[in-house]
Amino acid sequence: MTRLSQTSLYLALVHYPVTNKNGEVIASALTNFDLHDIARAACTFGACGFYCVTPLADQQEIAKTIASHWQTGFGSEYNPKRRQALNLIKVCDAIEDAVQDICALEQQAPLVIATSAQQMPNACDFKAVKDSLVKGCPHLLLFGTAWGLCPEVFDNADFILEPIEGDTGYNHLSVRSAASIMLDRLDRL
Amino acid sequence: MTRLSQTSLYLALVHYPVTNKNGEVIASALTNFDLHDIARAACTFGACGFYCVTPLADQQEIAKTIASHWQTGFGSEYNPKRRQALNLIKVCDAIEDAVQDICALEQQAPLVIATSAQQMPNACDFKAVKDSLVKGCPHLLLFGTAWGLCPEVFDNADFILEPIEGDTGYNHLSVRSAASIMLDRLDRL
Repeated sequence: MTRLSQTSLYLALVHYPVTNKNGEVIASALTNFDLHDIARAACTFGACGFYCVTPLADQQEIAKTIASHWQTGFGSEYNPKRRQALNLIKVCDAIEDAVQDICALEQQAPLVIATSAQQMPNACDFKAVKDSLVKGCPHLLLFGTAWGLCPEVFDNADFILEPIEGDTGYNHLSVRSAASIMLDRLDRL
Repeated sequence: MTRLSQTSLYLALVHYPVTNKNGEVIASALTNFDLHDIARAACTFGACGFYCVTPLADQQEIAKTIASHWQTGFGSEYNPKRRQALNLIKVCDAIEDAVQDICALEQQAPLVIATSAQQMPNACDFKAVKDSLVKGCPHLLLFGTAWGLCPEVFDNADFILEPIEGDTGYNHLSVRSAASIMLDRLDRL
């Protein structure tokens, strides 16, 4: 079994372009706990980086303030383990900027994986994504905030990953929970 | 495969007795996102109930206010899916009260499963817990807040469940992430 830490997996939490409950394209507000929980899961399972994607200057400042509190501020001494996780965070304007950053780091464009809480046409299972990861090229796993990633993001993705589902018909996990479960499943396949 | 929704699994998020970073026994403060995320994961995977355990009157009020906002307040119309999840929440003083409530509901005492981020002596794997669940009797899965459940809770548990680990040596998931991953693993075994 190849563990996730032996692959080149990057994560991005996307605040734009996402949809609101009416299906309109919006830029969502940051949620402190999203950054913490996904950074800690990324660190646990050995992801290479975690991009916080938002074009809004004030939201970028908030993300940097959260990260720096734990990287160099009071939190870095109070809880050094949090620092290790939040060091994975990079803030960028757009998904394309995360792709470009990975290109520069890896000398190779990443394959992009979009995720959704809904069943999507052409979705693949976790095994297909893991099989692609173990071939060695970098991958960027996108998580949507608010009511999810925009259609254009799915159109441009290399993979659409199947949603996390129980058998209850209730599919409203937080993005923090869904991201954590996805990393665990990818790690253990 | 027996799904989790076909078993009698209850969850409890324990705010007392837990330890702080110095190993002292404390009652921790509630975190809004813990209640939301774990309730939503419980609903996704078909848990029967979710106890918020705290002996502090002001903290019990906060838990009830959070739940009722989504159950009967503004949130119940804004986001009905959240109501469905938060309906699973019951607030109680102590782990023993959750046990007694399950006894009354199920006419049978639950087996108690303690969880930890640390490797514990006598910990069992997910398969052992699932095997016990499918036999039909109720189980209560305990999650600790702050720096984790107290030693006496482990001493009194029927099972201690192995921690969620990647292969990085970093084991500092949020309780929200750990609970979500544990439910997913138990569902799919």
